[in-house]
Formats: sequence, structure tokens, C-alpha cells
Amino acid sequence: MAEEHPTPGEDRVRIFDTTLRDGEQSPGISLSTPEKLDIAQQLARLGVDVIEAGFPISSPGDFESVQAIARQVEGPVICGLARTSSQDIDAAWNAVRDAARPRIHTFISTSDVHIEHQLQTTREDVAGQARAAVAHARGYCEDVEFSPMDATRASVEFTAEVIQIALEEGATTINVPDTVGYTMPEEYAAMFGELYRLVPGLRDVTLSVHCHDDLGLAVANSLAGVAAGCRQVECAVNGIGERAGNASLEEIVMLLHTRSASLGLETGVNTREIARTSRLVSRLTGYPVQPNKAIVGRNAFAHESGIHQDGVLKERTTYEIMDATTIGLEQNSIVLGKHSGRHALRKALEELGFEVEGAALNTAFKRFKEIADKKAKVTALDLEAIVSDEMRQSPSQFALEAFEVEASSVRSPLARVSVRLPGGEVVSGSFTGDGPVDAFFSAINAATGHEGRLKEYHVSAVTGGRDALGEVTVMLELGGVLASGQGVSTDILEASGRAYLRAITNALADASPVAEAERELQREAVEPVASTPGP
Amino acid sequence: MAEEHPTPGEDRVRIFDTTLRDGEQSPGISLSTPEKLDIAQQLARLGVDVIEAGFPISSPGDFESVQAIARQVEGPVICGLARTSSQDIDAAWNAVRDAARPRIHTFISTSDVHIEHQLQTTREDVAGQARAAVAHARGYCEDVEFSPMDATRASVEFTAEVIQIALEEGATTINVPDTVGYTMPEEYAAMFGELYRLVPGLRDVTLSVHCHDDLGLAVANSLAGVAAGCRQVECAVNGIGERAGNASLEEIVMLLHTRSASLGLETGVNTREIARTSRLVSRLTGYPVQPNKAIVGRNAFAHESGIHQDGVLKERTTYEIMDATTIGLEQNSIVLGKHSGRHALRKALEELGFEVEGAALNTAFKRFKEIADKKAKVTALDLEAIVSDEMRQSPSQFALEAFEVEASSVRSPLARVSVRLPGGEVVSGSFTGDGPVDAFFSAINAATGHEGRLKEYHVSAVTGGRDALGEVTVMLELGGVLASGQGVSTDILEASGRAYLRAITNALADASPVAEAERELQREAVEPVASTPGP
Repeated sequence: MAEEHPTPGEDRVRIFDTTLRDGEQSPGISLSTPEKLDIAQQLARLGVDVIEAGFPISSPGDFESVQAIARQVEGPVICGLARTSSQDIDAAWNAVRDAARPRIHTFISTSDVHIEHQLQTTREDVAGQARAAVAHARGYCEDVEFSPMDATRASVEFTAEVIQIALEEGATTINVPDTVGYTMPEEYAAMFGELYRLVPGLRDVTLSVHCHDDLGLAVANSLAGVAAGCRQVECAVNGIGERAGNASLEEIVMLLHTRSASLGLETGVNTREIARTSRLVSRLTGYPVQPNKAIVGRNAFAHESGIHQDGVLKERTTYEIMDATTIGLEQNSIVLGKHSGRHALRKALEELGFEVEGAALNTAFKRFKEIADKKAKVTALDLEAIVSDEMRQSPSQFALEAFEVEASSVRSPLARVSVRLPGGEVVSGSFTGDGPVDAFFSAINAATGHEGRLKEYHVSAVTGGRDALGEVTVMLELGGVLASGQGVSTDILEASGRAYLRAITNALADASPVAEAERELQREAVEPVASTPGP
Repeated sequence: MAEEHPTPGEDRVRIFDTTLRDGEQSPGISLSTPEKLDIAQQLARLGVDVIEAGFPISSPGDFESVQAIARQVEGPVICGLARTSSQDIDAAWNAVRDAARPRIHTFISTSDVHIEHQLQTTREDVAGQARAAVAHARGYCEDVEFSPMDATRASVEFTAEVIQIALEEGATTINVPDTVGYTMPEEYAAMFGELYRLVPGLRDVTLSVHCHDDLGLAVANSLAGVAAGCRQVECAVNGIGERAGNASLEEIVMLLHTRSASLGLETGVNTREIARTSRLVSRLTGYPVQPNKAIVGRNAFAHESGIHQDGVLKERTTYEIMDATTIGLEQNSIVLGKHSGRHALRKALEELGFEVEGAALNTAFKRFKEIADKKAKVTALDLEAIVSDEMRQSPSQFALEAFEVEASSVRSPLARVSVRLPGGEVVSGSFTGDGPVDAFFSAINAATGHEGRLKEYHVSAVTGGRDALGEVTVMLELGGVLASGQGVSTDILEASGRAYLRAITNALADASPVAEAERELQREAVEPVASTPGP
């Protein structure tokens, strides 16, 4: 692939992961701080270069989780997003300042459609805001990224002018986003060519791509940007993000890896962590990966499809351009059973990258035993699901104590449940519904007094077989807040109950008087973040 | 986008849909002839130019469904796939000959890795087979497509030589597939440039792309081929197909549509049928579409996300480059309730494109009433699900007569079921399992005497709300056959039972002594199709 434009003199492409920022903004995803920390730790194991951990001004919860990641996650640069206002940049800096290598990422739109309709201001004002923001950020931090938002629909001359200003004020990375997923590879590459021509100083900093997949071109556009000289790619695990999502991290990485002989580029990613990272993100966000998704879909590798075509694959390379082991899909040897002890469990968890000790190990072991009682073989995939499920437990949650469900084709289903409230009190309720799951959820509403309204409901099996663990994802609305929860069990009703109670817990955390009051203060202080979802 | 190479002198890109051939080859998809007909009819309404209806030699069922589509579906060219052998081409011709505009599509690999390891022959032999196949097909049919399989990993000179032979024998479309999803846009475009140079006759026929998404580039590669002069794009609804699937039909179409001002190209597709086509294919194949899938994912359009950001979208174009109504996602006004009569139902179904009369209308009405009893508002999406569910009923199926399930946190769940066998006899069974679904499925196994082994299990809600219809997809293995089934109900257990029984029906149809004997005959007569999945 031709590289007509100067590059920063290296063949290393930096992977900037925005799963926890752009990805987390997808409807219904409501990750807690411990969950975000789990994902960030896994991203560090995966070997990404930069973690965009969140948008600190957007909520106290986001601030807290970015700060926790900055303090605890070692390896990658930890980045916080900020609009151009001082409050935004102060919040971003305060959230990331404790990281070994902090970064502030500030942005403002350069397209007229955004300037007129959303910012309701002028180009001059945008240029001034960009100058002030980068200068302010550089006062705190040596590593500052600037993005001219919606650049692919903007005048390239004006975008160049604003980039020039950002460089004068000391920005060290310039990211040129295709915010609405509109551009095409040749067009995007041509824009970079023009920017290099108009802003010669771009040769001295890292140029970056950030592509959305609205027309199915996010990965190809990113590749075109890289071929044009960009050496940072912004992307998200499983391609999640606003609307059709961001470029998929795993597709970008495996593209550069598989075609390295032609492209001559490399990343710092340990590809063998890709499959596990994908599963963790899918599980904690509740966003499923479709079977025909590239790299991480169930069918992406022929040997995963469950069909053995004896003698067909005379030579693996006949139909496979990648080896499944490269992304960590090898058959894992871990299999535990009902007679496995605490030591075996801890060892197995360690092999999977989970360090579980003390009370957490006791809880995990208790849960493991319950499941091993019902399921002959507990595999690595099962353990991952159980541990992710348990990690989401906290004392302040609603917990399912007991339930009873009768369903039949002749009577309406009846559910009775007992729920332990966060305070410790156990309450009960019962309900006759349209179906057993509806009856179950309505009984929980009756018991807790919270009128959750179900919006989405999904079940999938962790592994095959009749004793498979079922993983349930629920999205509900409660008091105007949309929240999701997951639950895992061999019993689909139990898993459903756990997921529903977790979603209620999440909704109430988001709707607590403290959170509400803090949001109100913010509303008075600054423009709400919802109106500018970011690059 | 630059067009350096000659084109067939027009701006119309033909859409060649391979949902029923490459898509249907995905693991676990087992569509019946009526289901394939439903999809083909919808593809005709969508306005595709060519329907690749199947691979007639691969099984008697495939032959039958291609023939039914050729006889009944009006509008598109109906195409059957064939390897180079006379048996294959005879079968393809016999299957499509009754279409108004039939096409035979024959293929053979030109890459050395396929020639050596899979075909185990020589380049000379491949060239000879291609010549014989195209000549044989042209003896039957004026419309013949030829594909040099795995062309993107082949010597371009040898591929050109084989294409030249195909043209000499009268091929009217030349498709150059990226069979393993390996190529990149500039590379693919360069290959077409080279092919035009080596085979000047390509200017007089239709050149075609067929791209797989293994590295996330299927749509971009297709676009690069179109920019290089190709005027046919092979693609599949929801991007299903071998491994990571084919280029998504909806992404290709909406890309050409949304960027028509730059590209100057058009298709014959009625984009307003896209959303419905996607739902139908997802439902009948059991392949879910992830929320962040471009165009047809739940989140692809902001207004679909369930979040109302009042005052945020000051101007729709700020974040949306497409209007949701363009793909048929407008709020449909159809809402029925328990008091709606047969006439209202028929009218509503007609608006949705279903012509339901006589006994079928009676069945649909009975089912509608059952659901309207439990669900206050029956929407267009609900009706679609019910009708698709009912259309899958046939007298030769196992049917759920009655069930009773007790589940609780203190006892193992117990299920009792009554099943009507295809012959009319009603049998019963009961089972105590690990969870209510497991108990239910095991009770069905006990009642029917068929030991289905569950491989996959998914549930999703058709619409939001506590009285939502649940749609269950089951994949099971029975006697070495992998088969799937779907069921719809407000009761998740009832939907599960229906799905499981349908999967058993499908597995037994595939494993019947007749089907088995026919497969055996084929095995003796010709090389099994499984070893050459096609372009």
C-alpha cells in the first residue's frame, strides 16, 4: 500500500482504545467502577497503547472510574475526554493526573453543520476555544490530544487552521475523526494528504484516525488513514460505540497482523488476549457479538463452528487466513468438576488471569460448587462467566433470596420471590403474569416496590450442551433511567432474576438523590454532555 | 472516487444476493423450502437483480427449493451454483430452467493453494474444466456466470488466462471473488486494473465482486471493485455467509445511496424494504444482528436507541447521515388489540406484505387472538413475528400440545409435556432438570424418544415492555445432524418448547432415510460439496 505522505518515521501503529468512553456511551450500557476497572486491566493485558477511560465531566461516576483506572492500571497511557471549557479540562486533569502517563483529549467541531446547529457559534469562536483549551490542557499535562470533531464533513481549510492553532499551543496528538461515519477510504486518505500539505507541522506529531461504522467502512477508513501516515488508531472492542459503533479493535489489529508482509506495520497488542477481551466486554456491557462478526464472532474460525468436516480441511490455509490460536481461541485445558477443591479453583482462575483471594475466593468457590453440582464439567468459559458474575456482586445490591415459578399451558404463570434489600431486610412478592419471566419480574417489582419497566431481554448459553450456563441480559427503565444487568446460572429463571435485580440496583444508583443533585449542579454549571457525545 | 478503468458504460450497480446460497451455508442454518421461498419473495420486493437461490447438486432439499424459487418468484434473475462437473451443471440447469430469467453460476479455484491442496490437480486441468463447464452451461442457458475462486490469492496471470477461456466459451458475467476475505481495497482495485489489461474482453461483460469479511473489509473491498469498474456486487442480507460472512447487502446499498452525489452510482433496490428483509432473514436463520451493526442494528439510528434526548438533536443531520425512514424504520401505525377482528387482521397483514387467506388466515387469527388476550397492543413487529412463526407450521411437524413447569430455588425444576407427533398421536414425558428450560427440553426428549442435544440457545424480545413477545432460537444436534428452530410466544417456556420441537422436526427431515440414501448416492456419484463451499 502506497505511503505518499511523510510518517513519524516508524512502523509502529498505536492502538487507542475507546471502549470505556465512546463504547460505554451506547444506549443501556451502565458499567460500574469495578467493571470499568476490570475492562481496563484486561486492556492493559491486551497491550493497548492508550486507554480513553471516560469523559470525567459527564458524571461523578465517570470521574470516579477514570480516576480509579488512572491510579490502578499500569502500562497504557490513561486518557480523559474534555470539551473546550475550563471545567471540562479541569475535571479531565483531576481524573487522570495520578496516572504514570496521563493524557487530556480535548475536542471541538470544525464542521459548519455542527458549528451552526449544535454549538450555535462562529468559526472564529471555535478557533479561539480550541486555542484556549489546548493551552489550558498543556498547562497541566505534556500529553495533549486534540480532535476537530466532524472533520470529514468540515471545510478542510478551516480544519487545517484549527489544527495549526492546536499545534501552536502544544498538542502532541492530532486526531481527525469521521464522527458520523460518512467518509470513504480514498476520500479520507485525500483529506490527510491535504492536511499534511496545509499544516507541515503535522509531520512532527502523531496523527490519528477515529472512524465510525455507519456505512460499514470504519476499518477500511482507518486503514486508509494509516496508509496516509497516521500512526494512532482509535477503536473499541467488539466495535461498540455511538450508533453503528467505532472501528473494531480486533479487526484493525488482526488486519495489520495478518497483512503485515504487505503493510509493514505492527502494533503492541498481544493478539492472544483478543478473544478473552471480547468476551469480557460483551458480558459486562450486555452487548452480544453476532456469529458472523469478523475475528470474534462464533463462526469467524471454521473450527469453532461446531461442524467437523472430516478430511475437508486437507490444508488449513485452504480456507483460513488466520489461526484461531492467534487470538487465544485454543482449546483451554481447564476442566473442573464437583470434586475439585478450593486450591484447584484458585489455580484455574489464576491461569485465566483472575487473582481471587480471601472472601472473594470463598464466594467464588461457593458459587462454583453450586454450579458444579448441576454441571458435570465446569470449563474455562464457565469459570469466566461465574467470576464476572460474582465480581458484580456488592453488599449494596438487591439479591435474589428464593423464588418459585409455576408455568403451564392451561393457567397463567405464577411467580413468588423473596428479595434481600440493600439494607438486609428480606421482602416477598408474587405475581401472575403473561409468561414465567414476566411473572417473575412483576413479582420482583411487587416485592421491592420499584416499578421497573422491561425494555430488552436476551438469553444466551455460555457453552453448548443441556447443562450449559445461561447468561441473561436485561435492560429496564426505572424512574426515567435506562439500566442493564446480567445474571448467570444453569437455571434461566434464576439468571433472569439476578439480572433484573442487578439492573434495578444500577438504575437506582444512577437515579439516587446524590447523583441527581450532582447532575443538577452540573447542568447549572456547564452545558450538558449529552449534546456533544464526542468524536 | 476515480474510475481509471473502463466500465460497461452505465452507472447502475446490480445487486446479486447470495443470502440463500453462501448465507445459508452458515453453521446451523437449515431453512425449509417454504422459508427459502418467503425470503426469495421478500428479496424480489426489495428489488435485488439476481437471487442466488442455492447449490442444487448439494442436496435434494436444495434442488427442490431452487426449483420452487425459479418457478414462483418473479422479477430477479434466479441463479443456481455449480462446480465444473456435468452433474453439477445439469442439476443447476434443471433447478433454474423454469425461471423467466435463469442463470447458471459455475466456479473453479485458480489459486495454487486450492489447486494443490483441495482440487489436487494442475493449472492445465483447471483451465480445461473451466472451458468445459462454461461451454456446457452455455449449451443450456444464455446467462452464465463464471468465478475463478480464491482469485485474490492466485496468480493474476493464471486467473486472467482462465477468465479469457470463460469469455471465449460465452460467459456473460465474470465474478472475481475474495473467497477467504484476505484482500485490501487498493490491492483488490489493482487486481481488477491488471485483469482489464490482460483480458480486454472484460469490457464487454459484467464484472462482479464477491467479498468476505474476515478482516472487516468486505464492504470497502466491494466498493473498491465498483470504483474499478465492476457493476455487480455479490452480498448477503445481514452479512451472513461462510465464517465472518459476505459483504452486507444493506451496507453496500446504503453506501451507494448515501454517497451517490460522490459516487454517481445507483442500484435498483427499494431501500424502504431493508429493515423488514433484515428482520425476516434474522428470524428464519436464527442469526441475531448485533445492536451496533451498521444500518440494521438496533442502535444504528439514534432515534431507535430508546433514549429521548429532548432538545439535543437541534438538527437531525448533526449526527445522522441517513434518515431511518429510508430503510423502512418509520413508526408503523398498525396496532391491533383483543377486539380487532379477522378483517382488521387481514388488512394489517396485507399492509405488511403478507397475503394470508383461507385456512392460513384462520390459524393466524386464532394465534393472534391468543396473543392479543395477553398483550394489550399487537404491533406490526409482533404481527411479523407471529406470521413468520405460523408460516413455519406444517402438518408433518412435532407440535407442543400442553406443558407444565415448576421451578424454584429449593427444588430441581420439573417439567411435564405433551407433544403431538407428526402422525397425530399425542405422547407425554416428564423430567427433572438443572433448570426449567433443561427440564422442558429433556421432557420433550423423553416424550418423543429423540435424544436432541442442545448446542445453542438464544432468547430475545420482539418489542420492549413486560408483555413483549419472546423469540427463542434453539440449535441442537440429533443423530449427527445440526438443526435450528425458532418459536414465538409471550411465554418464554412455550416459545422454547416450540423452537425445540421445530429443531427436532428439521433435524429429522435432514436425517430421514430418504435424504440419507440420496446423500449416499450423491457421495458415490460426485465429490461431496462440503469440500468446496463455493466462492
